[in-house]
Amino acid sequence: MASDPADRAGAILVIDLAGITANWRLLAQIVEPAICAAVVKADAYGLGAAQVSAALASAGCRLFFTATIEEGVALRGVLPEPFEIAVLNGALAGCAEAFIEYRLVPVLNDPGQIAEWQQIAVRQGELLAMLHLDTGMARLGLTMRDFDRLAGLLRKPSASSGIFLGPAFHYDFVRPGAALYGINPQPGGLNPMRQIVRLRGRILQVREVDRGESVGYGATHLMNAPGRLATVAVGYADGWPRSLCPRGSGRLGGKRVPLVGRVSMDLVVFDVSDVDPAIARPGGFIELLGDDYGVDAAATGAGTIGYEILTALGRRYHRVYRGAPDQC
Amino acid sequence: MASDPADRAGAILVIDLAGITANWRLLAQIVEPAICAAVVKADAYGLGAAQVSAALASAGCRLFFTATIEEGVALRGVLPEPFEIAVLNGALAGCAEAFIEYRLVPVLNDPGQIAEWQQIAVRQGELLAMLHLDTGMARLGLTMRDFDRLAGLLRKPSASSGIFLGPAFHYDFVRPGAALYGINPQPGGLNPMRQIVRLRGRILQVREVDRGESVGYGATHLMNAPGRLATVAVGYADGWPRSLCPRGSGRLGGKRVPLVGRVSMDLVVFDVSDVDPAIARPGGFIELLGDDYGVDAAATGAGTIGYEILTALGRRYHRVYRGAPDQC
Repeated sequence: MASDPADRAGAILVIDLAGITANWRLLAQIVEPAICAAVVKADAYGLGAAQVSAALASAGCRLFFTATIEEGVALRGVLPEPFEIAVLNGALAGCAEAFIEYRLVPVLNDPGQIAEWQQIAVRQGELLAMLHLDTGMARLGLTMRDFDRLAGLLRKPSASSGIFLGPAFHYDFVRPGAALYGINPQPGGLNPMRQIVRLRGRILQVREVDRGESVGYGATHLMNAPGRLATVAVGYADGWPRSLCPRGSGRLGGKRVPLVGRVSMDLVVFDVSDVDPAIARPGGFIELLGDDYGVDAAATGAGTIGYEILTALGRRYHRVYRGAPDQC
Repeated sequence: MASDPADRAGAILVIDLAGITANWRLLAQIVEPAICAAVVKADAYGLGAAQVSAALASAGCRLFFTATIEEGVALRGVLPEPFEIAVLNGALAGCAEAFIEYRLVPVLNDPGQIAEWQQIAVRQGELLAMLHLDTGMARLGLTMRDFDRLAGLLRKPSASSGIFLGPAFHYDFVRPGAALYGINPQPGGLNPMRQIVRLRGRILQVREVDRGESVGYGATHLMNAPGRLATVAVGYADGWPRSLCPRGSGRLGGKRVPLVGRVSMDLVVFDVSDVDPAIARPGGFIELLGDDYGVDAAATGAGTIGYEILTALGRRYHRVYRGAPDQC
């Protein structure tokens, strides 16, 4: 019995696939009759592109976006045609062969790429492509000047937050990413999306400490009263960022337990002085992400955005997928 | 030819295994006659535990440390006995079977674990264990009081920085981690270790921008002169942290190119106005980590430590290992 990896896991990450498909269905309803695609780049924002994409496909999603061509190639192994897979980072010189071989759609970012792709399309008969308009970030995509020359030929997409700006911003299709994974598409407003991830870290040790004792590297935290500290098997190597100190927290026995001291590579310490010792015990779990303390809340504590918390979620977590298509 | 993943890679991470073994040999020489172990937890600080451990084993290292039991189980598949593998996070209740099955050595952190392990050792005949003394972090390990009861029975280890405190801190063995991977064990002093990682990000697009144009999400950067911007296929989903804005930089054509605007999930923008346009062109590479801009320098730009930069290195990079044992 002891050799089950779940029993000995230092942390368990539960990913609610049924929640992701519910979020997708909500967005698809809002934007009807526009088509609702799904962005599954960066390994579906850290949650597993293969599992997430299969669940979304079974919910009716037909168009998927990756960032890189490698992600597109891998996803083609999960989603055969007629599913459409578009690659946001576009077509580098010399990549046309792979785009054609795996039937991937490049998102073209400059007039040179468009010209090159047109030549290839002429040779191949016909090829699908998307164009990316730079909307003021000077990052990737066509300038307004480039775009004006091509407008009228095009279907126009909109992203998660655009969906909530109303039908004028839906155009022909929308490509939500963040909202599918529980990030609030209306920052500051009520979050209409279901939370998707639940992360629990195992308590390795609980210790009694005296007033004045220091905690962690650099002794950044000093106990201002005697108390109890729980050391949990999650660290910055698991994507639990160092910048969470000193504002991070967890949940145990219905209470908020503050993160104390610096996050180290494999460990983090919580002050569990206010929690019943029968609950705050080695082998138990502290909840790091959950329904009432989601990725957006953790991001605020770390001075970043929910997207970075999600994409940093570590490889050492024991991952459990709930609500996979065959379980629905 | 176009279907080679290296040709279409958005970023290439070169890991110098010969450099890691050279660093290990340097440390092993310094601490002689003490034994030099190696910490390969957190996937060898993000660089690949299997590749790094095999290289170190061929250089003569016999004792390896992981953080979790799962890491230990995986490493046993690479390093058969008589290599010793110790697990820093210790033995959770119910894990004894796996420790015994995979011949892993637990690092015991409290008197309860020691008592439990002693009982198991009696049943098994003999079992190796290590004890962890908490050195003022109130994180994991025995208190001084616990330890005093056991002292005298024990071999004592010391970590990377301890190695440079002189022989009095070497005890019977040392367990360097960070220094093997190029992190300066003497912060503020000259770094005696070789740099191990080199990261190059592909330029996807170069654009001319006018004075006053904004860059990236939130328009945090405004161009104060006309110039040229290069968009590179690396983002925070690859572990290139958002906190690098506004102090990060890359290297191109022998020049420092400042990171401008916010790092986004899959992309980052550099100001390449000062670089010859023949060099700053789509398909080329900007160096993000290298000999003269290593993990410690990147960490300073991001307000963190080199350890967090290393362990966050992403899964989408095309990884190239140089100097593997059979290449030596």
